[in-house]
Amino acid sequence: MTTPIVTLTTDFGLADHFVGVMKGVILGVCPRAQLVDISHGVTPFEITEGAYLVAQAYRYFPKKTVHLVVVDPGVGTSRRPILVEAAGQYFVGPDNGVLSLVYSQEKARVRLISDDRYFLKPVSRTFHGRDIFSPVAAHLAAGVAPAKMGKLIEDYLRPTFEKPQRAGKRTWVGRILKIDRFGNIVTNFHVNEFPDLEHRDFSLAIGPQQIGVLAHNYTECGPGEFFLIQGSTGYLEVSVSQGSAAKRLGCETGAPAELMIW
Amino acid sequence: MTTPIVTLTTDFGLADHFVGVMKGVILGVCPRAQLVDISHGVTPFEITEGAYLVAQAYRYFPKKTVHLVVVDPGVGTSRRPILVEAAGQYFVGPDNGVLSLVYSQEKARVRLISDDRYFLKPVSRTFHGRDIFSPVAAHLAAGVAPAKMGKLIEDYLRPTFEKPQRAGKRTWVGRILKIDRFGNIVTNFHVNEFPDLEHRDFSLAIGPQQIGVLAHNYTECGPGEFFLIQGSTGYLEVSVSQGSAAKRLGCETGAPAELMIW
Amino acid sequence: MTTPIVTLTTDFGLADHFVGVMKGVILGVCPRAQLVDISHGVTPFEITEGAYLVAQAYRYFPKKTVHLVVVDPGVGTSRRPILVEAAGQYFVGPDNGVLSLVYSQEKARVRLISDDRYFLKPVSRTFHGRDIFSPVAAHLAAGVAPAKMGKLIEDYLRPTFEKPQRAGKRTWVGRILKIDRFGNIVTNFHVNEFPDLEHRDFSLAIGPQQIGVLAHNYTECGPGEFFLIQGSTGYLEVSVSQGSAAKRLGCETGAPAELMIW
Repeated sequence: MTTPIVTLTTDFGLADHFVGVMKGVILGVCPRAQLVDISHGVTPFEITEGAYLVAQAYRYFPKKTVHLVVVDPGVGTSRRPILVEAAGQYFVGPDNGVLSLVYSQEKARVRLISDDRYFLKPVSRTFHGRDIFSPVAAHLAAGVAPAKMGKLIEDYLRPTFEKPQRAGKRTWVGRILKIDRFGNIVTNFHVNEFPDLEHRDFSLAIGPQQIGVLAHNYTECGPGEFFLIQGSTGYLEVSVSQGSAAKRLGCETGAPAELMIW
Repeated sequence: MTTPIVTLTTDFGLADHFVGVMKGVILGVCPRAQLVDISHGVTPFEITEGAYLVAQAYRYFPKKTVHLVVVDPGVGTSRRPILVEAAGQYFVGPDNGVLSLVYSQEKARVRLISDDRYFLKPVSRTFHGRDIFSPVAAHLAAGVAPAKMGKLIEDYLRPTFEKPQRAGKRTWVGRILKIDRFGNIVTNFHVNEFPDLEHRDFSLAIGPQQIGVLAHNYTECGPGEFFLIQGSTGYLEVSVSQGSAAKRLGCETGAPAELMIW
Repeated sequence: MTTPIVTLTTDFGLADHFVGVMKGVILGVCPRAQLVDISHGVTPFEITEGAYLVAQAYRYFPKKTVHLVVVDPGVGTSRRPILVEAAGQYFVGPDNGVLSLVYSQEKARVRLISDDRYFLKPVSRTFHGRDIFSPVAAHLAAGVAPAKMGKLIEDYLRPTFEKPQRAGKRTWVGRILKIDRFGNIVTNFHVNEFPDLEHRDFSLAIGPQQIGVLAHNYTECGPGEFFLIQGSTGYLEVSVSQGSAAKRLGCETGAPAELMIW
């Protein structure tokens, strides 16, 4: 008998009862589920940040894991609930782009969640995390086939925040995906698309700061020196030795980052 | 074989070892338990806030769930430990009102926890969450009958913070129960007691601000406009579109809210 | 069939995906594991604080529990990964002192973790919590013998932060180990080494403040009065009735505390 896993990623924080309530609903349907929090500290309404977090986490989970992602500024409006099948796993959340870093990187099938047999009723106007996404995730974890939840769709949202745009012969404009607890600045420049940076002259600009060093670990550079490093997720990150790069540069999620390569 | 569930609600925060220690004690007694955090972010010593959180969460949990609630400014004094049986579930915590929103709303039986066979010894003066409430909750989860823990009592604390008080023919004075992560202000005006507000003229005053609009979702009003909305818990909440109502009004948990209806 | 327990203590915080990823890796190896967070709120890079937290927590967990401790400023350098067997439990983390409050207090065996069959490959330069410590902890939880992970060593790090130093006939100089959520100041003066303080005249100095009262519970002293109290962990703590001692004294983890006894 396998142990089903359900992960949770939201912007609900941990001080309120919202996350606990979602877990109660899940355990009512699937009592044996392993519940794993990815993060509930997504900046409120920041879809990009939720998309980034789940995309970085899912590859480390076993097949059949169900990922529940609720960053949902449009709750109560006509935005649709969707279910994504990709990489042998399941993803449940609103059709607002929060699952787009999964289906842009993997062969995926996307369904419109429509069968309200799997909902908690009455469905409220303000908390679909509890009434739709949690019970659907729990039924998936308990073995209900995705096809029972609703039909395949093609017109799901495809936002464009995930990749740097070419802005000139030697220039790309990307953006800041996330600032982590240590103040490291995660950009959307991925090492797979810029594999030879180590052997080139380059400059990454964030605000007035130019960074031209690619380091191999966090202790290689002197205190106070800015450097670029390949983060554990493959994205290039801006760091400063034993300090907070984000505080030093005063930058935030969503800000631009410009890369020039010679 | 069912999976027993134990939820935890405290004002211990997550940076210290206190919550981890309580879970270690629980798993020593009941290794199969599903442990679910409701919140450890209760404002220190704010009994009302702990009472609100557990009251909003428990109805979404299966029968036999054990809810452990430790907001306990009187630890080490003569305040008593109690066990509440209500709605087919169990609640364990200090007799200081933190379980009162459960027994004021449900048919309940309340016991004085007294049999120290179920305690972790020696019982310290400062951490009954570890030494009394956690092992008692774990033994309940493992199947020990509530009657073994201690005898029924009637003189448990009945505080009056849960309902608005009538202050005139058209006026009720309530209070702020909780401010959530999004800055929504949860009042103790419950839709069950004010069911026809939608069809009436009304004004809710918090500080100098008057709110006279009842919205159906968070995107119905224009940016910056204050409105009332029925929260997912049934309590009326004050919100402001895409902003923090609590920050705009500068108000805190416990502050008064005055409702006038014509 | 027993349920294996893995606890996690890190300075990763809860807003990023790091902790979720570690849990995914653990569950991929040992799906039945009970995962318990001790704290992810260790001040970044503060090895002493991580050491204190795990040392306070482990005695409340059952035999065979695996404790995963990742406060790791030297990740990517030559600092070694170690496995400690003590008190019938296992501890996995970097050899930088973060496990020293365990092996200084218990009969312990320490191994160098070297068999990369138990690692997640390729091992990154920046996230050994994911690539080394999590899979090793999970294999231990799943029943792999510690001896398979690597050979016993004697030259592991022995820092000296754990005990007060005698500074004169009547004087000891200790330090602040931790400031808890309530603003209580945990010192490294342990009641076992100063058992008769209750019957002596004494003065503990933190900055300009002298504290000469030993209380038995948090409500014994008047509002605003400083006192010493034996914390639930046995260390003496400085508190102030219904307030934050740390805020009042403006002190931080690592600051000195001087005890004089007559």
